[in-house]
Amino acid sequence: MFQDSQDMRTNLSELGEFGLIDHLTKGFEPKLSSTVKAIGDDAAVLNFENKHTVVTTDLLVEGVHFDLAYMPLKHLGYKAVMVNASDVYAMNAKATQITVSIAASNRFPVEALEELYSGIELAAKLYNIDVVGGDTTSSTSGLLISITALGIADKEDIVYRSGAKPNDLLVVTGDLGAAYMGLQILEREKEVFKANPNAQPDLDPYTYLIERQLKPEARKDIAPLLKELGVKPTSMIDISDGLSSEIIHLCKNSQVGANLYEEKIPLDPAVISVCEEFDIDSTTIALSGGEDYELLFTISQEDYDKIKANPNLTVIGHMAEEKEGMHLITRANQKLPLIARGWNSMEDKNEKSEKKE
Amino acid sequence: MFQDSQDMRTNLSELGEFGLIDHLTKGFEPKLSSTVKAIGDDAAVLNFENKHTVVTTDLLVEGVHFDLAYMPLKHLGYKAVMVNASDVYAMNAKATQITVSIAASNRFPVEALEELYSGIELAAKLYNIDVVGGDTTSSTSGLLISITALGIADKEDIVYRSGAKPNDLLVVTGDLGAAYMGLQILEREKEVFKANPNAQPDLDPYTYLIERQLKPEARKDIAPLLKELGVKPTSMIDISDGLSSEIIHLCKNSQVGANLYEEKIPLDPAVISVCEEFDIDSTTIALSGGEDYELLFTISQEDYDKIKANPNLTVIGHMAEEKEGMHLITRANQKLPLIARGWNSMEDKNEKSEKKE
Repeated sequence: MFQDSQDMRTNLSELGEFGLIDHLTKGFEPKLSSTVKAIGDDAAVLNFENKHTVVTTDLLVEGVHFDLAYMPLKHLGYKAVMVNASDVYAMNAKATQITVSIAASNRFPVEALEELYSGIELAAKLYNIDVVGGDTTSSTSGLLISITALGIADKEDIVYRSGAKPNDLLVVTGDLGAAYMGLQILEREKEVFKANPNAQPDLDPYTYLIERQLKPEARKDIAPLLKELGVKPTSMIDISDGLSSEIIHLCKNSQVGANLYEEKIPLDPAVISVCEEFDIDSTTIALSGGEDYELLFTISQEDYDKIKANPNLTVIGHMAEEKEGMHLITRANQKLPLIARGWNSMEDKNEKSEKKE
Repeated sequence: MFQDSQDMRTNLSELGEFGLIDHLTKGFEPKLSSTVKAIGDDAAVLNFENKHTVVTTDLLVEGVHFDLAYMPLKHLGYKAVMVNASDVYAMNAKATQITVSIAASNRFPVEALEELYSGIELAAKLYNIDVVGGDTTSSTSGLLISITALGIADKEDIVYRSGAKPNDLLVVTGDLGAAYMGLQILEREKEVFKANPNAQPDLDPYTYLIERQLKPEARKDIAPLLKELGVKPTSMIDISDGLSSEIIHLCKNSQVGANLYEEKIPLDPAVISVCEEFDIDSTTIALSGGEDYELLFTISQEDYDKIKANPNLTVIGHMAEEKEGMHLITRANQKLPLIARGWNSMEDKNEKSEKKE
């Protein structure tokens, strides 16, 4: 993953009123032809020509969405971009520009914000996204990041949550539950460290899980893959809160039911093994874990042959008539109602208006 | 101005995880044809056809940008929209959509957020802007509002900060300094109230000043007015930090100098009278006061006849060669260098990347 930079301290005030943002964004040269004017005026100017524009925003708050005890700032910057880009990809669109606003208390020196921005810059570069604006301000406590992402798509390619039909196949990308178990590992190590600061943890067996938590990758590849396969999903959403609540969103928005097959849920072997270690049911983690930033979508049955050989895509169930309800079919062939259960309580829960039911 | 609603308290958690945003945004029906899909999916979808898109973002933090001791929440919501819309208007563009993200601590009941959103909703309605997305989350302390505004303009209508030429006329809309003096009045009354909670202040003489501080209006009218007059500014910026720093931004971005005439600076009589009361120089307030959200722009001399009769527009100076520098010509005909001086120190200062030099 990333390397930490050395420990230096420059107070935010040393750079002067307009120096900080100049300093932090000096590497952010726009690369896309759709970015007419990036940072440097009252607003950025973009030219999307005949494309539709997609816009989404997310707020990450210290102590609510991240803990700097185990989340390095560079990773945090990277992840903040991913969280937003993922929402754009969930529209079957291409992420193109972001604005980044930061509120930071004086406990953060300039070098800390540089770390944060270096993660943002890396993510933007790897995902071909221009940083076109933002705002930096002080806060009375802690760190807060607000990112707005813009994207483009041809009108006919955009996929909403509302298009699923009964009998459509339910498909998920990648595997589930790893990000949540990575967080459990990090929280356990934090407690171990508190009890004994000299303990040298062996985190090697958990590398994949920790990386999924600290450096998630949004599924930029899925929209072009589906295009190449000649498949347009009937509905789509990204998995930020856990599989079950995302299925419920698709069902409610599309007015359909669903059957999810437990045995089909893709789990990485590392998730299965750490769930045994923690004595937690891995299906529960996949259903409620969240933060995987995989995509969940539905396709017409006739498109099955086009996707069945692809290792990125797993069919995990199918949609049903609305009156049939939403169910998990267990390995023991029990039919249990699907319940939306985020992995956080209301008090520490990110709540998105784009996710309203 | 606005009326306060009665004092009720519903804890944020009572509405459940996804209930809050539903509740707060239920009146937010999109009205613009460019809004294809507003709240309710992973992202909003917009159709700007052949227009260029303008995007800007601002973060307002409690204790830094506003004090709830004298800023009612409804006004705060209204002002947060104005701050962003103003940046769009400063591109000579039309504001069309906003996303609104809020972080609030548990000290804010649902009714408080309803008040905040009612101000946002009113501003959106009056300025013909759709609210198309957002994020609501808890914070560990205080209230924070992050708004991103989108706008549109024909490519040829967009005005940057960088187009001013020597001898262009420097023009300002409205009058300056009132918002800052409104803040001084409110802060004085807060101290009086602290000393004697039973004091009944007579704020009538200060109505205009307080309204400029608590309920500023962004200059939505200027782009269509200039179009009607057949004038395209050569450069433009909004006045959020005070006249002198905005002139300096225009000069640096356009690589020109400027002469500003003290006697031409438009001041409301209420500003002049309250400056006498506070024993402050009114020119200093206009130069450094900030938060007026008027527009500052330059036009070619040949357009002078088209604007000279308009009561909204005042010619306050002219641009010069870069080597001549930037000066204030006083009433006594002294030539003083213009100095950028915000009305806040670095510690409590909003800093915008769109404003970098």
